[in-house]
Amino acid sequence: MHAGGNRDAAVFPPVVENGSARGRAVIVCEHASNHIPAPWGDLGLTADQRRAHIAWDPGALGLARGLAERLDAVLVHAPVSRLVYDCNRAPDMAGAMPARSEIHDIPGNAALTPEDRARRTAAVYIPFHDGLHAVLMDRIARGLHPALITIHSFTPVYFGKPRAVEFGVIHDADDTLPRAILAAARAHTPLRAQLNEPYSARDDVTHTLRLQATPYGLPNAMLEVRNDLIATPEAEAAMAATLAPVLAAAMATLTPEPV
Amino acid sequence: MHAGGNRDAAVFPPVVENGSARGRAVIVCEHASNHIPAPWGDLGLTADQRRAHIAWDPGALGLARGLAERLDAVLVHAPVSRLVYDCNRAPDMAGAMPARSEIHDIPGNAALTPEDRARRTAAVYIPFHDGLHAVLMDRIARGLHPALITIHSFTPVYFGKPRAVEFGVIHDADDTLPRAILAAARAHTPLRAQLNEPYSARDDVTHTLRLQATPYGLPNAMLEVRNDLIATPEAEAAMAATLAPVLAAAMATLTPEPV
Repeated sequence: MHAGGNRDAAVFPPVVENGSARGRAVIVCEHASNHIPAPWGDLGLTADQRRAHIAWDPGALGLARGLAERLDAVLVHAPVSRLVYDCNRAPDMAGAMPARSEIHDIPGNAALTPEDRARRTAAVYIPFHDGLHAVLMDRIARGLHPALITIHSFTPVYFGKPRAVEFGVIHDADDTLPRAILAAARAHTPLRAQLNEPYSARDDVTHTLRLQATPYGLPNAMLEVRNDLIATPEAEAAMAATLAPVLAAAMATLTPEPV
Repeated sequence: MHAGGNRDAAVFPPVVENGSARGRAVIVCEHASNHIPAPWGDLGLTADQRRAHIAWDPGALGLARGLAERLDAVLVHAPVSRLVYDCNRAPDMAGAMPARSEIHDIPGNAALTPEDRARRTAAVYIPFHDGLHAVLMDRIARGLHPALITIHSFTPVYFGKPRAVEFGVIHDADDTLPRAILAAARAHTPLRAQLNEPYSARDDVTHTLRLQATPYGLPNAMLEVRNDLIATPEAEAAMAATLAPVLAAAMATLTPEPV
């Protein structure tokens, strides 16, 4: 942002909600929106494709909002579809601006030039991570000991195969908080909960954790909820009511104590 | 910067030089300046203290500029003294806004409130790392495979003890580039070169590498030159002439090939 052009281009910083919340959790939703801003047209996709899970994580934002409210947590979410830029991927990963997602070709991403890739990185990825970084650094500087929790949803059927897991807890380098969340979910909810399902750090899905939490030693976890369980506003709210005490119990096991 | 106040306060983004350079190295100098901007007065220090190594790394910027020129590299350096905020430290590290440095008390840092710490973090640390991040991400997005090299200097006498090492090469998680630099320095220069001297990652001196290089798998190294060897503009230029071929030889061993 401070260097290297793109001064006149539109940028898409994250939306920050509950900025003055005092709870320890910082809730993040990289795939909150299926919005494709004007500069990128419709990426050559049908309206059905633009509403499907390839464009965003359906239900994740509603669940994240419910959790943020119940945990007195700040919420940071991306305002742009991951098909424009997937903020949970570094700029040199194939999935950052995917030419194909599951069984769908993305025509608007088929032949990106280095300049196209740099422009999308500057418009979406950099502002998103700068915005999240600022929130975390402010809390670290004030001694609030933030814990980073990212909220995702996954499709019940992937490449034609049904998925039995309902709640996945994924860790990167530090598994402390994920294991505490898993234990609390199994103890206190009927959810079929699994560690590192339906995918794991080896699938390169933990970029936000690696970038924003690991360098600061922050407790962190990536949560995945099967999207048929959060398909309506009522279901999102019910899942938030189920998971908020799970996250609170897990965070209570951390040192230093939550503030 | 996008959230949480400080909108009216001055911010101090890094200086970016040679922004359109095409070489693989991104040269960084976190301790380039001993400037203490107006909001912080003189931090209660004498003029001699503000010129001493506690306030900055004397000679490092001149050396970094010489290297950037010879390597066709972009240079990113901080415009503010590390006694205001040390950009190579996270906001919760004691050294970020040190109350004491070597044998000197820093009166202006003696009783910082959480609000003071948040303000300095927002003014200096966040803009510095956002600026460096933008430079690196632009290059990654364009396929330029950047390598991050930070340039520091150290005092010949520390706590009364002389240091024999002249050129220190410090690694964090990935020692590939540091070991290649060390081998080239020993093969092609008369410098007394050592790995992880005069300090190492265990002393928490590799924050910039951890934050900006490790999450992206970028080759990275922290270089330390004894400051009596770069005490004049002529000496800085001579050291740049000595070290530029060392860095070029080391980078030539990396895969993918430098562009």
